[in-house]
Formats: sequence, structure tokens, C-alpha cells
Amino acid sequence: MSTREDWPLPTFAIRESFLGTANASSGAAVIVAGVPLDISTTNRAGARDGPAAIRRASRMLGGSYPDLPHDMHDLDFADVGNFGMLMGSLTETLQTIEEQASRCNHLIAMGGDHLISLPLLRALARKHGPVGMVHFDAHVDTWAENFGAPVTHGTNFRLAIEEGLVDPRRMVQIGIRCRVEPDVWRWTLDQGVTILSAEEVHLSSPRAVAEQVKAVVGEGKTYLTFDIDALDPSNAPGTGTPEVGGLQTWQARGIVTRLKGVDFVGMDLVEVAPAYDVGEITALAGASMICYYMGLLVARSVGVRTNE
Amino acid sequence: MSTREDWPLPTFAIRESFLGTANASSGAAVIVAGVPLDISTTNRAGARDGPAAIRRASRMLGGSYPDLPHDMHDLDFADVGNFGMLMGSLTETLQTIEEQASRCNHLIAMGGDHLISLPLLRALARKHGPVGMVHFDAHVDTWAENFGAPVTHGTNFRLAIEEGLVDPRRMVQIGIRCRVEPDVWRWTLDQGVTILSAEEVHLSSPRAVAEQVKAVVGEGKTYLTFDIDALDPSNAPGTGTPEVGGLQTWQARGIVTRLKGVDFVGMDLVEVAPAYDVGEITALAGASMICYYMGLLVARSVGVRTNE
Amino acid sequence: MSTREDWPLPTFAIRESFLGTANASSGAAVIVAGVPLDISTTNRAGARDGPAAIRRASRMLGGSYPDLPHDMHDLDFADVGNFGMLMGSLTETLQTIEEQASRCNHLIAMGGDHLISLPLLRALARKHGPVGMVHFDAHVDTWAENFGAPVTHGTNFRLAIEEGLVDPRRMVQIGIRCRVEPDVWRWTLDQGVTILSAEEVHLSSPRAVAEQVKAVVGEGKTYLTFDIDALDPSNAPGTGTPEVGGLQTWQARGIVTRLKGVDFVGMDLVEVAPAYDVGEITALAGASMICYYMGLLVARSVGVRTNE
Amino acid sequence: MSTREDWPLPTFAIRESFLGTANASSGAAVIVAGVPLDISTTNRAGARDGPAAIRRASRMLGGSYPDLPHDMHDLDFADVGNFGMLMGSLTETLQTIEEQASRCNHLIAMGGDHLISLPLLRALARKHGPVGMVHFDAHVDTWAENFGAPVTHGTNFRLAIEEGLVDPRRMVQIGIRCRVEPDVWRWTLDQGVTILSAEEVHLSSPRAVAEQVKAVVGEGKTYLTFDIDALDPSNAPGTGTPEVGGLQTWQARGIVTRLKGVDFVGMDLVEVAPAYDVGEITALAGASMICYYMGLLVARSVGVRTNE
Amino acid sequence: MSTREDWPLPTFAIRESFLGTANASSGAAVIVAGVPLDISTTNRAGARDGPAAIRRASRMLGGSYPDLPHDMHDLDFADVGNFGMLMGSLTETLQTIEEQASRCNHLIAMGGDHLISLPLLRALARKHGPVGMVHFDAHVDTWAENFGAPVTHGTNFRLAIEEGLVDPRRMVQIGIRCRVEPDVWRWTLDQGVTILSAEEVHLSSPRAVAEQVKAVVGEGKTYLTFDIDALDPSNAPGTGTPEVGGLQTWQARGIVTRLKGVDFVGMDLVEVAPAYDVGEITALAGASMICYYMGLLVARSVGVRTNE
Amino acid sequence: MSTREDWPLPTFAIRESFLGTANASSGAAVIVAGVPLDISTTNRAGARDGPAAIRRASRMLGGSYPDLPHDMHDLDFADVGNFGMLMGSLTETLQTIEEQASRCNHLIAMGGDHLISLPLLRALARKHGPVGMVHFDAHVDTWAENFGAPVTHGTNFRLAIEEGLVDPRRMVQIGIRCRVEPDVWRWTLDQGVTILSAEEVHLSSPRAVAEQVKAVVGEGKTYLTFDIDALDPSNAPGTGTPEVGGLQTWQARGIVTRLKGVDFVGMDLVEVAPAYDVGEITALAGASMICYYMGLLVARSVGVRTNE
Repeated sequence: MSTREDWPLPTFAIRESFLGTANASSGAAVIVAGVPLDISTTNRAGARDGPAAIRRASRMLGGSYPDLPHDMHDLDFADVGNFGMLMGSLTETLQTIEEQASRCNHLIAMGGDHLISLPLLRALARKHGPVGMVHFDAHVDTWAENFGAPVTHGTNFRLAIEEGLVDPRRMVQIGIRCRVEPDVWRWTLDQGVTILSAEEVHLSSPRAVAEQVKAVVGEGKTYLTFDIDALDPSNAPGTGTPEVGGLQTWQARGIVTRLKGVDFVGMDLVEVAPAYDVGEITALAGASMICYYMGLLVARSVGVRTNE
Repeated sequence: MSTREDWPLPTFAIRESFLGTANASSGAAVIVAGVPLDISTTNRAGARDGPAAIRRASRMLGGSYPDLPHDMHDLDFADVGNFGMLMGSLTETLQTIEEQASRCNHLIAMGGDHLISLPLLRALARKHGPVGMVHFDAHVDTWAENFGAPVTHGTNFRLAIEEGLVDPRRMVQIGIRCRVEPDVWRWTLDQGVTILSAEEVHLSSPRAVAEQVKAVVGEGKTYLTFDIDALDPSNAPGTGTPEVGGLQTWQARGIVTRLKGVDFVGMDLVEVAPAYDVGEITALAGASMICYYMGLLVARSVGVRTNE
Repeated sequence: MSTREDWPLPTFAIRESFLGTANASSGAAVIVAGVPLDISTTNRAGARDGPAAIRRASRMLGGSYPDLPHDMHDLDFADVGNFGMLMGSLTETLQTIEEQASRCNHLIAMGGDHLISLPLLRALARKHGPVGMVHFDAHVDTWAENFGAPVTHGTNFRLAIEEGLVDPRRMVQIGIRCRVEPDVWRWTLDQGVTILSAEEVHLSSPRAVAEQVKAVVGEGKTYLTFDIDALDPSNAPGTGTPEVGGLQTWQARGIVTRLKGVDFVGMDLVEVAPAYDVGEITALAGASMICYYMGLLVARSVGVRTNE
Repeated sequence: MSTREDWPLPTFAIRESFLGTANASSGAAVIVAGVPLDISTTNRAGARDGPAAIRRASRMLGGSYPDLPHDMHDLDFADVGNFGMLMGSLTETLQTIEEQASRCNHLIAMGGDHLISLPLLRALARKHGPVGMVHFDAHVDTWAENFGAPVTHGTNFRLAIEEGLVDPRRMVQIGIRCRVEPDVWRWTLDQGVTILSAEEVHLSSPRAVAEQVKAVVGEGKTYLTFDIDALDPSNAPGTGTPEVGGLQTWQARGIVTRLKGVDFVGMDLVEVAPAYDVGEITALAGASMICYYMGLLVARSVGVRTNE
Repeated sequence: MSTREDWPLPTFAIRESFLGTANASSGAAVIVAGVPLDISTTNRAGARDGPAAIRRASRMLGGSYPDLPHDMHDLDFADVGNFGMLMGSLTETLQTIEEQASRCNHLIAMGGDHLISLPLLRALARKHGPVGMVHFDAHVDTWAENFGAPVTHGTNFRLAIEEGLVDPRRMVQIGIRCRVEPDVWRWTLDQGVTILSAEEVHLSSPRAVAEQVKAVVGEGKTYLTFDIDALDPSNAPGTGTPEVGGLQTWQARGIVTRLKGVDFVGMDLVEVAPAYDVGEITALAGASMICYYMGLLVARSVGVRTNE
Repeated sequence: MSTREDWPLPTFAIRESFLGTANASSGAAVIVAGVPLDISTTNRAGARDGPAAIRRASRMLGGSYPDLPHDMHDLDFADVGNFGMLMGSLTETLQTIEEQASRCNHLIAMGGDHLISLPLLRALARKHGPVGMVHFDAHVDTWAENFGAPVTHGTNFRLAIEEGLVDPRRMVQIGIRCRVEPDVWRWTLDQGVTILSAEEVHLSSPRAVAEQVKAVVGEGKTYLTFDIDALDPSNAPGTGTPEVGGLQTWQARGIVTRLKGVDFVGMDLVEVAPAYDVGEITALAGASMICYYMGLLVARSVGVRTNE
């Protein structure tokens, strides 16, 4: 990955791709792509502009961190831009997303709202069968319907479980603190999902939480889905359905970077809505989480360049 | 209409209904309602929050204006809140809007994006047959499709014309200045639509434009649809698809308030997206245009209280 | 409480009353009302717009939370809008607030600045005599005067104590971290007020703080006053006199929701100034605190519907 | 006036006094002072922060303009900071403002809300008797009361006329476009006040308006009061009670700079509320108007340095 | 130019290059590039982020306009990203810009501050000798020094004239309204520069101004430099040194689009500072001006594709 | 220090100097000055406006705090405004800063970007030789070059160490969490610098960190440099290069106020960029840190008034 030409490019001049990469090849080992769908949001709109904001903020990141034993420059990744979308029908839209996702070796998707996880998981399940899932969120996203609509950013994981895309016994939710109807709560627990509330994270430590997470997902194929509203509204105001009492970025950083060894097969980072952000801090938090995930790949030698 | 209780309510304390009215009766002669649908926007989202912003800004307005010979307090109007919506399917959503609109005596709708005009016109056409239309906008909204979708906030008036809801020879567009494919432009003119570009308005006067408008719509039933992006981005930054070179509010005020005598049967004010606004100026512009329309009703004794 | 009509209302379409309630009856067991007075602020203005912002943000809340054993839908509450106010004289203004408060069964007031607590406590003391008080704040609010004015949002609790409205030995302040003249500090402690600084909360746990609070207020009638600046500026930028080093919302949530059993007779949530907020996070924090308080009422069967 | 020390100060480094002046002497011929009172506002608050914002924006201004035949550096002026205020009682507050104004040779006051004009005119009337007045505003400000309060930023000029501070036959209002009760309108015209609506300005030219203004005020002592909401909300979003359809800054500039020869004895610039501004454009507009007024003084050799 | 892949990309999903082009080839007939240098600004910083904001806003533009007889799709243009820069020394930085500019066939540069015009003109003068110049600006930019610095965004055109890069008798400035020291003003006029003040534009018409401009520049090679602060702060708040009384976008649009026939050899659009913008309106204005310029090229068959 | 005149000044009316002081004498024992240089920033610009924002926010501060045994009013300090600067050449600019710093008894500098520390340390080293340093930051600032430039806000402390201005074995960095090339990291550690990462602070306590800091700097002359990006982006969004996972203000407050006994000889607070701030929280955090430092001086009787 090179972001330099004949003369150096200061951070502010770097191209607005993820980490400023010039690599846009769909054949790269790891693909970063935007999926700017946000028509299923039930509160504030605007996650469609999330990918652009995350790319912009990411330019400060990349490279190597003293406490993370790997160098991002080793990763063979490309930013292929945003997925195309048919907008006339939600069903068709989800199919186009699934199809585009299927073509990627290892996909890191930038939402968009949380509904995008559904077609992404459909694409993954075709290859791997049901996967485990590490799910950062304020909300359980296992409702049966939202405001009369069966397919939204709040029913996505009920559908994913029912469709057999995710193995709920290998699924852990971190940061939960929303209101939930008792039957939705019970259904979720009954499937075998592990729920770590935000308060539990505050009263624990990143290391201990990471251990719990690893115990749940075990050694099988696992997906990471990070709804930015898992973070506290002070850390991520730029999102559609904020809830007070959320995680601090230092906690999320501490948890994610300690998930070395998990066999991740894909990731999404969703619900960044820049119109409600300040100083790009929400986008920066999102970009940082993706970076930490990339570090996990490098540490596990996934998607690493072979002969450069 | 009373916004006072035992003690006076300063403007900032007035309830956030349109003009602060306490009347929420669906049987009022004139109904103000929000239709916060915005899932068909093609650029920036957030018109769903338009109704709330317009209500809030409207609290400064109402009453009588020295240059307008009527008193808004004479109008028998209610603010019934927002329309309910089924979100699962666009077709169904439009039907629920149409049905709710059908129940209103004389509806002033606050969008939402411009697609809401389609079901509102469907409801009107049931009663009145094809209506004339005064259409403020930067865009012609007569595309055959947008990004693969046939029913959006850019195809709404092609559909309205094709469905016979609007009589294109009694339709006038004011403020147009967008890019348009030549075939779309030609189709629109071929239907008989009159187009007054923004520059033509700048080089003319509000009085002269009002005369042109009245000449086009004549004496038949007429609808007013006001896309806030008819205004210049400086006057209305809070919208989804701004275009430079638009109208100033003094021009729009000057045109609308001079449309006395036109037989208006309904109005909508759409595309206010508060997340991009500053100091509520876009919402205030929208609320003001609705107020001027209400003044036209009073001046024509439409919807006026009978025995108060 | 129903926020639905024939068709469902997505969160963004719900009416902007507290929790979207349609109940505006002044006879409800619990009354939510705005008191948008802010003329006594000494730094930034704008708390007059607090009630509207809190209502708007509250629409995401309500219902039941897995870790709180009650359902908000059981509460018989109404949002009666904002109090009227005579603006000519501060004395008269406070009297109108007191009188309106006196008419409410159990009042939850949304400020406005912190001075509103004074007339609210006057109304309560008429019924109950001196009450205990749980007081979240960055500031002690027991100054003898502010900038030459004896009745402001900084002298309110000196006055409340001197007038015998509050029993200072049953009063606890949480989150204090402002500069204070030594004589003001000494006076406050001399009255018997318990002060828990913000740093003490950071170095303790919500559970331990809640125990301390309950020990101070005991079993008598108690008032909850929550100045949003008790929270850290990162959690609540939208306020008039922010101070660094404040509480996180997870801490405030953890403390308030553990105050089960306290005999609360009223609450106010003050100093939300939306013009300085971002992404509505301050308003959301305020709305959440009110919700947690409502949960305490339900848990104690206060204001619960009898036969619905 | 020097804003330089040993090394030059770029604009952004200049001290935040008006035009960056280091002169704070209360004995200067012309005094610029802030009067940050805003407790009488009826809609949005925050004009208290107007003086600071105007000072900050003013640092780009000053000097000489090719089309204005004078050099601001010749003016003997000082920025004495903000007036002190007793906050306990409005009557007392107004007295402290009047007294401080009385001590100034020639005062240019930066508000604060429009009520500050009342004590300033009281101070002037002591010296000069009733003055003429050039009054830029969206609102007539001649209400008899506002929301039950007799002394507010909407009753100020009714009081000024009734107290004999202003000669209404030598008073002209420019930019008016608010709603007004018919009796308020009639009262104002009956006093002999000349009203130029905003639309009249749009349909005229700055030169013609300036001629009308000069014809009204004649050769007597005259006061200039500029409510920033005379400007269109697009030009001045940062204000408390914006009204659409207002003046553009080029028009206000064109009018004010053509008022050479009028015998001005003081000025105020009010209602700049920075919390609602964008890019400091409202504050800049305010600072510019003050600058043009200063140019009029220099052109008339008022307040010009004698031997420097 | 195609911005589509297998599935359509809604506007908000289009890549953030100029007009969303995928063409990044440095061999294209017309090159769009960012030059994000802003270290010479004397007031507000941040023009370094101008290119990104302009690209983002441009995605709504392109195509054909009914009143402009050409189709932008015919233009063979590429967006090559941002120029690299050596940051250690201003002299060296300017050299790197000049060198990169020299390699482009026909360059449209997005600033950055106005100093970038200097190296761009140096590159052009190497090829063409002194050029004529159409210069939109609030400021003359012909100072001899700014705050002790000889090479800034305020001395750029003094240097350009002195170095013989621009022929001052074929140079016209449009929109001027800043304060200027008399000697700077005189020097500028003495060189033969034509100055059209903003007020002159307001009192004239776009057509008449365009005629004046064409008369000045004649038939020789001509450069277009558009400082966004030529526009009024209401139209372009996002800039470093705003001045009230500026042009409206409809006027700038009307002037630029009427400059058909001028032999343009390059353009820059500078001083967009997004941190001070609202709703992207400044960036949109900038992008629109570039689009109009591209239309002039197409109309003159400059840079048009040959066999597609 | 008095901020009062005949009548009291509410907080919002106090002059915008540090703590509202009227003392601008360069002979004061402690000098507060702005150094608004920001041309070496590599990401977002605008730290030039930091001093003004910090002054404004500081008006709420000062006086005495219950948990800090001293009274700020005892300090003999002045706010002398901003340093002048030659802008043409970076070398010269740094010299002018150094020279102005040399004239101050004990300087507290408000940046500006972090490069200003270099000339300030040069001035100090002239008097004291190499000093110890307490360095709050997200970044090590010991790069050998940034984007081709050898003297920037990222190379400042490499230069300071190499020039012998700072004794690296008495230097401690707190809050570090940026990406760093391994050789830069190693170089820093090899010099003997102590690095406390942000996560180490989160997992420790302010008291323990303060002890570590005191152990490193010992009893020699010591400098405090506080880059506001040491704080978490949620606490300090208004800065140029934010990094997630940073310190909370309560932690920074807890550490700084416990550094009693350290022999501090100067301080700077840098990288506040108000254009990216919300509700002034970043500026307030910066002003607060300066206040705590002043408290340390008073506690050590440095700069205290002798006979007032």
C-alpha cells in the first residue's frame, strides 16, 4: 500500500479511500467496501454517508501500534468503493448486496444501517454454513418486527438466526442497554445468545470481557459486527439510535484487540450517521475498530501479502 | 385558535404544533399533518424530521400581516400530528398515506420527501379529477426512473401526469435549474408543462411571475407543491438536493402571496432536512410558505370559522 | 399509553411529547411538564428550549428494560405541555410556576434553568413540609448571591434551605466539582448537607454511591433534582455552565436506577441547553434520567394505572 | 489605533476588541461597548454573546474602503469592554445601563437584545431631547406588551416614543415584515413613524432608500439602531426572531454608507445570537454595519483625532 | 465517464471524485486536481479540506443543463487526486506545485488558499507567456506584503503581475469589496487592472457584466481564478476571509456561463474551508462554478473526447 | 485580580482574557499568552484560534476549589494577549516566538500547534539548561520528519531532545496511543523517555499515575506540555489529530492536581482547534488544565502576590 507519489502527501491530502489506499482491485485478499443502505432506519437517517466519513477519518490510521504486534502494511487489502444498489424494492436491494458480497475474498463492509449484515451473512453462510458472531451493539436487534415492517435494522439478527446464518450459541452481544419487550429478550436468551450488558463491561475489564467472548465463539468461523451505537453517545453521537450508558472507545479497543486467535471470516461496521457527528469522532471510532480488526487478521496471517 | 392558558406562553414555550394550535381534531376544515417519509431520497436523507422542525419554527408566525388583508386566526384548522406508515413495502406505504389523506377536508402536508405528493394527489384526484399545479422546485421531478427505481422523489410528477392526477397544461414549475437529460426535458415540455427557470424569476419580479402562474392554472382546482429546494441553498441549506442559483425567500413570498383567487384544494411543503439546516432558517422558510398559503385560503374564505 | 393510530408510527414520526404520549390530561397521576424559564442563567443561555429537546429525544425511550423490573406502560402519566409564565417580574414569574405546580398530583418538571426548583419546592413544601433531596449537579447552588442578584440558578438551594423547603440533613449532592468560595462551602456543610464530589463517584461504584444516597435521605419524602451539568461535558455539552471531570451517563444510570425504595414526591431535570448540544445527546441523557425515575415510581407502585 | 507590537499580528492573532484596538480609555471621543443583556427575548436566547462575536469578527475590518472617502484610522475610538449589570431587577438593570451610557461621549453599543436601546435612548434624551431615529428591523417593536410583560425587546420603541425619547415623525423603520396586530400597526403609523417594508427595499435601490431615510430624519440629532434581524435569515441566521424575506447585506451596506450628512449621535447593533450562527456571518454583518457607521462619523469629522 | 457498475449507484453512493469520475489518468485532456495548501491564510484556516468537500458536493452535478448547449459527458477529463507537497519550506512547496501543474494538459485546480494560483500561473506562463485573467474575489490580492510575509494569499497577484505571468490590462476583478490601503488600490489600477465592485454587479445584470469581462480579456489566452469569497457569506460561509455584500450564486452562474468564446487555458477554485460551511453549500457553489467552466470548454470543443 | 467595575459583570459579560483578568502587564510574575501558530499541522488546521477559545471558556473558572488548598486570586498573573509573528519563514517565526518567550518571568502559553513548544523550550533552556518534562499527548512527537518536513508538530520533541533542551530521562509521556513506526518508538525509549499509554492510565488511578510522574521528573526544573489530544475525542473533539481511547478529563484533572511539589518552570496547552469543537468543551478542558497548573504554582508559592 502506498499513499505517496513523487512528493509526500500530508494526512489531509491523502486520497479518501480506506487508509488512503490506492488499491481498488476486487481481487485483493481483503476487501473494504461501503454499503450505504439506510432506508430501514427507524429513528434518525443518514447512515448512507457513513462509508465516506469512515474513509476520510481513516487517513490518520494504519501502520503499526506499539501494543499490537503486527504491521498493517503487510495486509493485502483494497478499497473497492461502494456497492451498487437497486433501490426500487428492499428484497431486490438485499439480493444485490448479497451478490456483490459473495464475490469478495474476505469482506469488511462499512454501513449503512445494520440491516446490511443480513445479506452479508447470507453470502457468508453460503460458503461457511452458520457462523459464530461477536456483536457490539446497544440493541439486541432480534425484534420480530419494527413498526409493522418485518425486515429492518432491528429484526436483522432474528432473521439471521431463523435463517440459520448464525449459530446463536456461538453468538455474543456486547454493550446491550436498550429497552426490550420481555418476549423479545426471552426469545434471544432462549436461542442461546450470550448477552453482556454495557454495565457489565463497565464493571469488568477489557481483558476479562475478551476472555468471555472467546469462550463463547470458540474456534469456529466467526463474524464481527460492530454497531457504532455500542459506544456511548459521547463517543459516537453520529448515529441513528443512540442510548446513554454505552462503552468508551478505550474499552472497545481493549476488547477487540485482544480477540487474537478467533477465526474471523468477515466484519461490518454500521450505523455511522455523520450528519449528527462532531469533529468526525464517530467516524474515527468506526475507522479505528476496522483497523483493529485488520490487525487481528495480520496477527493470524490472514490476507497477508505473500511476496512483497 | 388559542395558544394561551391561564398565564401567557412566550414564543419559546408554545406547544410545538403548527402555529402552536391546540386543535388536533381531524374534523377541522383545514388539516395540517406531517408525512415524514424519506426513504426515496437519492442524495441526503433526513426529510423525515421536516414536520417537527417546521412546527417548531412556525410558532413565531401566524396572526395578520400588514400587507396581507386577512387574519389567520379566522381559519378553522387543526394540526393532527404525523401520518402513520407501514414501512415494509413502498407500495403499501403510499397506500396508507393516500388513505389518510382521503379523510381530510383540505390537507396541508409537511414532508417528508417529494414522493409524498404522489399519494396526496391520488387522494385529491379521487375527489376532483386532474388538478392544476403550482410547483416550486429546483428539479423537474419528471424523470422516468432514478438509479433503477421507478417510484422516487424524482419520478413523482411523471407518474402523477401519467396517472392523470395532474393536468400538465395547467401545471407550472418555478425555480427550475437542475441538470436534466434532454429527453426528460423534452417529455416535460411536450406534456404542456410551463417551466419558469430560477434565472427567469431573478430577472423578473414577483408580481409578474404571479401573473404568469395565474394565467397557467386558470380557474380550475389547483394544488400547490413547494419543494424547499426551490429556494437558494443560502436560504434553505437544510434539504437533500440543493442547487445553487435558487430563489430568495422574498421572491417566493412575493409570488405566493399574490396568488389570491386561485382555487387551491391542497398543499404540500417538502424536503426540509433539519440535520443540514442552520438556525432553523430552512424550517422557518417552509413554515412561512404554509402560512402564506393559509392566508390565501382566508382571503378566499376557504376553511374560515363560521360562528365564532 | 398509546402512541399508535391505525397505522404504526416509526420512532421518527411519533408526536414530540414525553415518550410520545397522547395523554395531556392534567388529572393524570404523574404529570410531565416543561418549565422553560432561563432568565437567571449566569453563563450561557438557552435552557428555555430544554423541554422541547427532551421530549423529542424521549421518543426512543419508555417500555421496559431487562435490568429494571417494571414496565413504564403501567404508569398513569400525562405530558401537559409547558407552564405559562408572566415575564415582567421574576417574583411574579416564580409565583405562577409555584401555582401551576401545586395543581399537579406528582410533577416531573423539565427545565429551564435550576431556579425553577425553588417554586417547585415551595409547592411541595406546602403539602409535605421540608423534604429530603437527591441533588445531581456540578455546582453546590448554595451561593448567597450571583453577580449582585439574590435569586438565581446559583442561589436556589440556599433559599430552599433558608425557607425550610428542604431538610439539609436529608440532602445529598452528587457530582460536585466547581470552584466555590470557602465561606459558601462551609455554610453548605454546616447545614448538614452531604457532598459527594465527582471524583469520589469515579473512584467508587454506582452501587456504593446509591447506598450512601439512601442512607442520607432515609425514609421521608424526597425530591430528585438533576442538573444535567452533573454529567461530564462530553456527555452533556448542551448546558450553560459545564465543568470538566463530571459523571458518565452509565454512572448516573447506575445510581438512579438503584434508588428503589426512596419515597420520591417529585423530580426536575434542568439546564439542558440544546443550542450547545450535538446529536441530541444531552437531551437524550436528560430524557433517560426522567425515564429511570419513572421506573422507580412504577417499582414502588406510585402513579400506576389501577384498572386498565 | 495600533494593533501591532514588535512583530506583526496576523488577523487571527489580533486581540478580540473591536477592530482589535488596544485603546480601552473611557475618555475616547467614540466609545464602543458591549451591553450583553438578553433576558427580555421572547423566542431564542443568547444575544448576551453578541458583543464577543462581533468583536471577534471585526478584526478583519477597519481601514479604508475604495468607495468610502475616509480612513477609519482617523477615528479616536476605544473599546471599553462590556457594561456591568445588576441582574436582580429589570428596572435596576436598565438604570445601570443608562448611567454607564451617560458617561460616554458618543456611544456605539453592541447588544444584547433590542431592549437595550431604551436605556441608551434615555441617556441620549437627557442631553439632546427627543432624537430622530433610523431603525433597521424586521419588527416594529412598538407592541404595548409581550406575553404579559410591559418592558421587553418588543415594546422598547413604544416606550421610547411615549417617554418622548424619540420623535416619531423623524423615525423611519426599514426592513419590516413581521406579523403585527392591526391596532399596533395603526398606533405606529398614527405616531407619524415612516415604515419601509423589506419588499419595498427589494423593489427599490439602496440609493433611493437612503434618500427617503434622509428626508425623514432631516438635520436634527439622530440615532441609528440596527437590529440584525432586519437582514434576511440567510444573511443573519444567528439571531433570536428571524423572519424570511429580509434585506441582503449589500442593500444594508448600500443604504447605511449613503447616510452621509445625517447628524448621528449614537448607534446600537443588537440581537446577534452566535449560538445560531454559521461561519460567524451574522457577527460579521453586525461588525460591518458598525464600521460603516464609523465611516459616516469620520466623513463628518465626528470623533476624529485632532493631533496625531 | 461512467459512475455505474453492475448495479446503479445512487448519488450518495457515488465515489467522491469530481463528478464521481473513475478516470484518474494523468493523460486526460482536462485534469481536475486538489492543491490543499493553506498555510498562507491570514484569518481562518482549513482550505486544505476544500478539495474533498468540493468532490463530495460535485456528485450531484454534471450532465447537461437545459440553458447550456453542451453535455459534460463529452469532456475527456480525469480527477487525479491531490498534488503532493513538500511542507518544509514555502518556496519548495510552491515549486512542487508548479512542477506538477506543468505536467497537466489543461488543469482545473481545487484549492487550497489563493496562493496556489501563483505556481499554477508560473506553470502556465512557461507555455503561454502572460495570460489574461478573470478574477472573482472579494479582495484585490495585490498587497505588497501581509503581516510581514511577502508571499501569501493576499500578495499572489501582485507577484503574478510583477513576474509577468498575467497581463494586467487583460485582467478583470469581479466582486471586490474589501478594505484596501489607498496605495494598494492605486497600484492595482495603475497596472491597468479593471475592477468591478460587488455593488456594481448588484446594480447591473449578469449579461452586462459578462460583456464587460469579455471586452477586457479579449481573444488571448485567459485564466479563470475563482475565490469563493467573491460570493456573499450567506452563499459561501465556508471560507477564510468572508466579506459582506458579495455576489449571489445566481449572479456568478449567470456571468460565468455567458463567457463562451473566451480562450480559457486553466482554472482554479480556491478558499473553500469546509469547517465553517453549513449543509455543504459553499462546496456545492465551488463545484458548480467548476462545472460551468467545464461547460465552456465543451462549448468551445476544448478537451472533448474524439472517438467515443 | 478584579474583573468587576462599578456594577457586577455576569460570567457571560466578563472580558475575554484568561480568567477575565484586566492585568495585561508584561511584568507580572506569571504571564499567560497566546501563540496562535498552526502552520505545521499535518491533519486538521485551526489551532490558531485556540487561545481565543480558551480565554473565552476560562471565564467560568478561577477562584478556589474545595479539594485544592489554594486560592487563584493570590497569583500575580497577567494575560498579555497573543505573541506577534513573522509569517514569511518558519525559522524566523520560531525565533520571534523564542524571543518573546524569553522576556516572560514564567510563561503559560496557549497554542497554537505543538511545534510552539520548541521555541518555548529553547527560551527556557537558555535560563535553566535541559529541563524535565511532563508531556500529556496521544502522540510521541519524536518523529524524525513528517511528510518531508523536518520541523513540525510531530518532530518537536525529537528536536528538543537532540538540541539538549529536555533531559529525556526526566521526561514522561502520558496518554500515548497513536500508531508509531517501530524505529521511532525505539528511538524514544532509547533516549530514556518514560511512556505511559492511555490504556495504562485507564487501568490505573490518577493518584498512582501522579506518583509515577513525580518519580520520573524528580526535583529538577520541569516543564508541563499538555496536548489536548491526550484527552479522548469525546472530551476534546476540537483538535487536529484525535485518537480514540484517550483520557477522560477527570483523570487528567486527578493527575495534574496531584503534581504538587514538582518544580515547574513553564507550561503550554496546545492543539485546541475550535472549529471542530462542540459547546466549547475542548476549550474548557484546556482552560481547566491551565487553571490546575496555576493552582500548583500557588500551592508552591510561585508567582504569588507579595503585598496586596
